[in-house]
Amino acid sequence: MLDFHIHQPDSSLLEAIKHKIDFKTKPLGALGRLEDLSKKICLIQQTTTPELTHPTILVFAGDHGLAREGVSAFPQEVTHQMVMNFLAGGAAISVFCKLHQLNLQIIDAGVNYTFETLPNLINKKVGYGTKNSLTEEAMTPQELEQAIQAGTQLVLQQRESGCNIIGFGEMGIGNTSAASLLMAALTGISINDCIGRGTGVDEKGLAHKVKILQAVYDHHQDKTSDPMAFFRSVAGYEMAMMLGAMLQAAESKMILLVDGFIASSVYLMAHRLYPAIEAYAIFCHQSNEQGHSKMLESVSANSILHLDLRLGEGTGCALAYPLIQSSVAFINDMASFESAAVSQKS
Amino acid sequence: MLDFHIHQPDSSLLEAIKHKIDFKTKPLGALGRLEDLSKKICLIQQTTTPELTHPTILVFAGDHGLAREGVSAFPQEVTHQMVMNFLAGGAAISVFCKLHQLNLQIIDAGVNYTFETLPNLINKKVGYGTKNSLTEEAMTPQELEQAIQAGTQLVLQQRESGCNIIGFGEMGIGNTSAASLLMAALTGISINDCIGRGTGVDEKGLAHKVKILQAVYDHHQDKTSDPMAFFRSVAGYEMAMMLGAMLQAAESKMILLVDGFIASSVYLMAHRLYPAIEAYAIFCHQSNEQGHSKMLESVSANSILHLDLRLGEGTGCALAYPLIQSSVAFINDMASFESAAVSQKS
Repeated sequence: MLDFHIHQPDSSLLEAIKHKIDFKTKPLGALGRLEDLSKKICLIQQTTTPELTHPTILVFAGDHGLAREGVSAFPQEVTHQMVMNFLAGGAAISVFCKLHQLNLQIIDAGVNYTFETLPNLINKKVGYGTKNSLTEEAMTPQELEQAIQAGTQLVLQQRESGCNIIGFGEMGIGNTSAASLLMAALTGISINDCIGRGTGVDEKGLAHKVKILQAVYDHHQDKTSDPMAFFRSVAGYEMAMMLGAMLQAAESKMILLVDGFIASSVYLMAHRLYPAIEAYAIFCHQSNEQGHSKMLESVSANSILHLDLRLGEGTGCALAYPLIQSSVAFINDMASFESAAVSQKS
Repeated sequence: MLDFHIHQPDSSLLEAIKHKIDFKTKPLGALGRLEDLSKKICLIQQTTTPELTHPTILVFAGDHGLAREGVSAFPQEVTHQMVMNFLAGGAAISVFCKLHQLNLQIIDAGVNYTFETLPNLINKKVGYGTKNSLTEEAMTPQELEQAIQAGTQLVLQQRESGCNIIGFGEMGIGNTSAASLLMAALTGISINDCIGRGTGVDEKGLAHKVKILQAVYDHHQDKTSDPMAFFRSVAGYEMAMMLGAMLQAAESKMILLVDGFIASSVYLMAHRLYPAIEAYAIFCHQSNEQGHSKMLESVSANSILHLDLRLGEGTGCALAYPLIQSSVAFINDMASFESAAVSQKS
């Protein structure tokens, strides 16, 4: 069902990019990680004069049937309440996108709530929350297909509007559980080491979460050899839509910003299907969530920020964006030793 | 000679600040390091509605007599050439300040070059480079006094212009050597562990640098019990001016941005003299320079960014600034659970 065309960028420009960076007025390599970012972006765009246009964060919201098993510290109604908060500008991602001038799009991928028509809410609802993965498959094949297609279409629209850098956030009570399950299946790491506190469950809640997730894992264990079948059995609509969006962004040669435990688990799935996606992905923040570092390690990702955030929503993408801008600005705007008449290393 | 009045901010507002942060629409503590930054800034400004006004980076440039001993990979003329590059907008700090909308001020603290009158260069020249600390004291007491006074005045002017957040950068071929010497004297860490490659000396150059700095240290060892006397013997004019600037910024209850190996060594001196300065300091970036982590550890500093930069100029301050803005934006602009009608943790 998946038919994306994702290829490594041509690397023949790399020497020219390195040369341009190395002759900027600074000691060799002195801009550290910003130099790596700059190289990556130049390769994606096949240029030595990169630019970032219409930076956008897509936040996908969806509910999880598994939430009724008490795996989250917050009640399910928080998903739709937070969607309203995103739209009203009161959520962290709203504040950071406004501050750093990123376009924010909120998508109802499958929230268990009937929204009245809201001008800024993009309605791509696949259903009123997934089924409970403890006893059933979370999605039908048709629902998975519909969600992936919707994510693909949303990214194509952004690309047509001139966006070349796109980040992904999510909101869905219970989705750290889905991400933990997916991580366990894709990495082979024991379910216990893939589980974190999500929005902040206590010791007792954590023990309960471990027990439930182990039961979900066991219920679907026969599908672990078929990653997409397992994904369909445990993931949320918002995760499936994000999967389609990430794959389309890479096919469209956009810069992908990956942040947070849930989005990283979706990236893991995308990477399993199309390893070349790595060339387009920038990892923005490594969260405090147990398992996130192991997850990122499994795809050799090295995040820009380590701020102990555990919020999701794409907040790490918005916070890392000014650093990504900086990596583009220095290669375009800094003087070279020659142009500035600065003596080089003796 | 030093008569600054630096006091810990009143902490009685802390509960109100914490309460405001904890009732924002996010799980408790979910904004991690940004929450710590927000608290610190609120305490400095004694408010729960902080603001950042006229953010400014002061870059102090000065030459070092010790540079003639070949401790740097670059020739001394690079100091004045880089000053011209700062003014022309071609240096990394120029590009980052422009991008992130910080005011950039370049100060000739003691460059070994006669600049023609340049409208944007602030002339506070104490001398044409310090004396060679291998054989003499780098500065006279009068020169030290003059440099500190100039730094103080510059910050008072910024404060009067409405600036409440100020970062410090430097340019001076040879000044990582001065910083290493200062670090050794102030922390008691062996000179060998305080030495890094600065702008990038090779193995042979590093061995030479170690030999020279040990000799300088031995020459002035009798003054290690009097930190200001040692500072005067090894530091540069740009470092002395920065010392005055940092102390005045803390006295004036401004937010201090500290970045880089050299500025951190000056902060170490300031902290030794007035430990309460810590309440006003935000550590922006931990550099790749050997010794920087040990230096920051010695004052229990925890930097926001770890990007393997080793450039100085205040670049870490400019790059961290958007994150500091983010920490102020969230406490002012995010909705509370109550105002957004979002259910709290069950």
